[in-house]
Amino acid sequence: MAQLTVGQSAEFSKTVTEADVVLFAGITGDFNPAHIDQTYAEKSRFGGRIAHGMLCAGFVSAVLAMKLPGPGTIYLDQTLRFTRPVRIGDTVTARAELLELMPKKRARFLTTCTNQNGETVLEGEATVLIPST
Amino acid sequence: MAQLTVGQSAEFSKTVTEADVVLFAGITGDFNPAHIDQTYAEKSRFGGRIAHGMLCAGFVSAVLAMKLPGPGTIYLDQTLRFTRPVRIGDTVTARAELLELMPKKRARFLTTCTNQNGETVLEGEATVLIPST
Amino acid sequence: MAQLTVGQSAEFSKTVTEADVVLFAGITGDFNPAHIDQTYAEKSRFGGRIAHGMLCAGFVSAVLAMKLPGPGTIYLDQTLRFTRPVRIGDTVTARAELLELMPKKRARFLTTCTNQNGETVLEGEATVLIPST
Amino acid sequence: MAQLTVGQSAEFSKTVTEADVVLFAGITGDFNPAHIDQTYAEKSRFGGRIAHGMLCAGFVSAVLAMKLPGPGTIYLDQTLRFTRPVRIGDTVTARAELLELMPKKRARFLTTCTNQNGETVLEGEATVLIPST
Repeated sequence: MAQLTVGQSAEFSKTVTEADVVLFAGITGDFNPAHIDQTYAEKSRFGGRIAHGMLCAGFVSAVLAMKLPGPGTIYLDQTLRFTRPVRIGDTVTARAELLELMPKKRARFLTTCTNQNGETVLEGEATVLIPST
Repeated sequence: MAQLTVGQSAEFSKTVTEADVVLFAGITGDFNPAHIDQTYAEKSRFGGRIAHGMLCAGFVSAVLAMKLPGPGTIYLDQTLRFTRPVRIGDTVTARAELLELMPKKRARFLTTCTNQNGETVLEGEATVLIPST
Repeated sequence: MAQLTVGQSAEFSKTVTEADVVLFAGITGDFNPAHIDQTYAEKSRFGGRIAHGMLCAGFVSAVLAMKLPGPGTIYLDQTLRFTRPVRIGDTVTARAELLELMPKKRARFLTTCTNQNGETVLEGEATVLIPST
Repeated sequence: MAQLTVGQSAEFSKTVTEADVVLFAGITGDFNPAHIDQTYAEKSRFGGRIAHGMLCAGFVSAVLAMKLPGPGTIYLDQTLRFTRPVRIGDTVTARAELLELMPKKRARFLTTCTNQNGETVLEGEATVLIPST
């Protein structure tokens, strides 16, 4: 792949659908009523069903694996702060910005997700192994 | 819910299937060839397809939301270290152990995932908002 | 199966749901923002998310395999012209009309898809191997 | 996007899993026993279940939409010749090669799919609308 430069960034956007939430629950076993029970969710602080935080974290994984550094990237660690709920129908943009190139082909990224209103819904940092060229 | 006690723990186990990996790629957009291209993966350091790290993180989300603290739990933050690959067919056990009860109904957990051989594949800490009784 | 006659036709109708589009992206890897990013799609020429053209082509495959010539049909070739977008919520009718019986148990069909307003969204021709009786 | 040059090409590879075939059947309605009935398929000419041809065509759609010309590409037409069966477990590489740049931002591509043994399983041509820069 091309040379990586500190400050470089990439984005990936996806609308979160009800099907995504259903399938995420189905493959992980996380059937928190906040995600899958509309009656419960309407009475909760959020007033409706919200997506799993880890689904959003999956979009971070996607931008790292598909764009920067790109295919073949291996995850080493990730910190995640969930700062706002993501609702069904929201369009989330995951962004990775290269903070530091480290020894042994490792790199550290600032990773954030924002919704269609530009509000941050997730933030944290990732360390990955850069794929060999 | 019942009173929480520091040191208390809970587990959730699930076999990671090829369908889980296909669906996780499908809802997140993470088509890293390490996960979806057997020909590529056989030549990689892992010798075969591996599951997405964030799928495992989803099992951590599941044990928190389903068992401890249980339904209605809200994620605040999570750290994740991916220490070993998870292969299709592996059975992963996610475990949450209460480390600290904090003000404003928050709690901190040690969160780990191990495979069927007892090897740690993921470790980190979670902070969550405990559901109201 | 019963004797085939030139001019004979069959239809299959299905409403295109958001879940169909999510799953089609997931199994093919086609995450074109036109299909999965509502914010992008609203600004595009179509004013909203559209279904993958090949999902519609799948309905053609379905009418051939399920109705005419029916179970056991083997696809040889297909031409496809995508003439109008298919939106989430549209009901598509795929139609196959027998144009020609050919040697070696082959048959040629006119294949079209229309939406709920009768507008053609896809047209083309298929050649298939007729299943043995 | 960058300037397109005749002869330029891109590839996308994916292993075809049983889950892909199940889901493709589910969203299209194509329950041809060749794809979903192992007992039937074992007695057929192919000796086992094969993937839907249109699933492979979906990989062609993916390489056009994700790589060349890339996100925002709109399909105009596609010809497809299915030359060999694709079995569950096969790894398919879809390839698009730019044949011609045409007026009104259209482009024509040679599109092929090969399996892990380098055998062609699908071939044809695509015409697409190139996304605006």
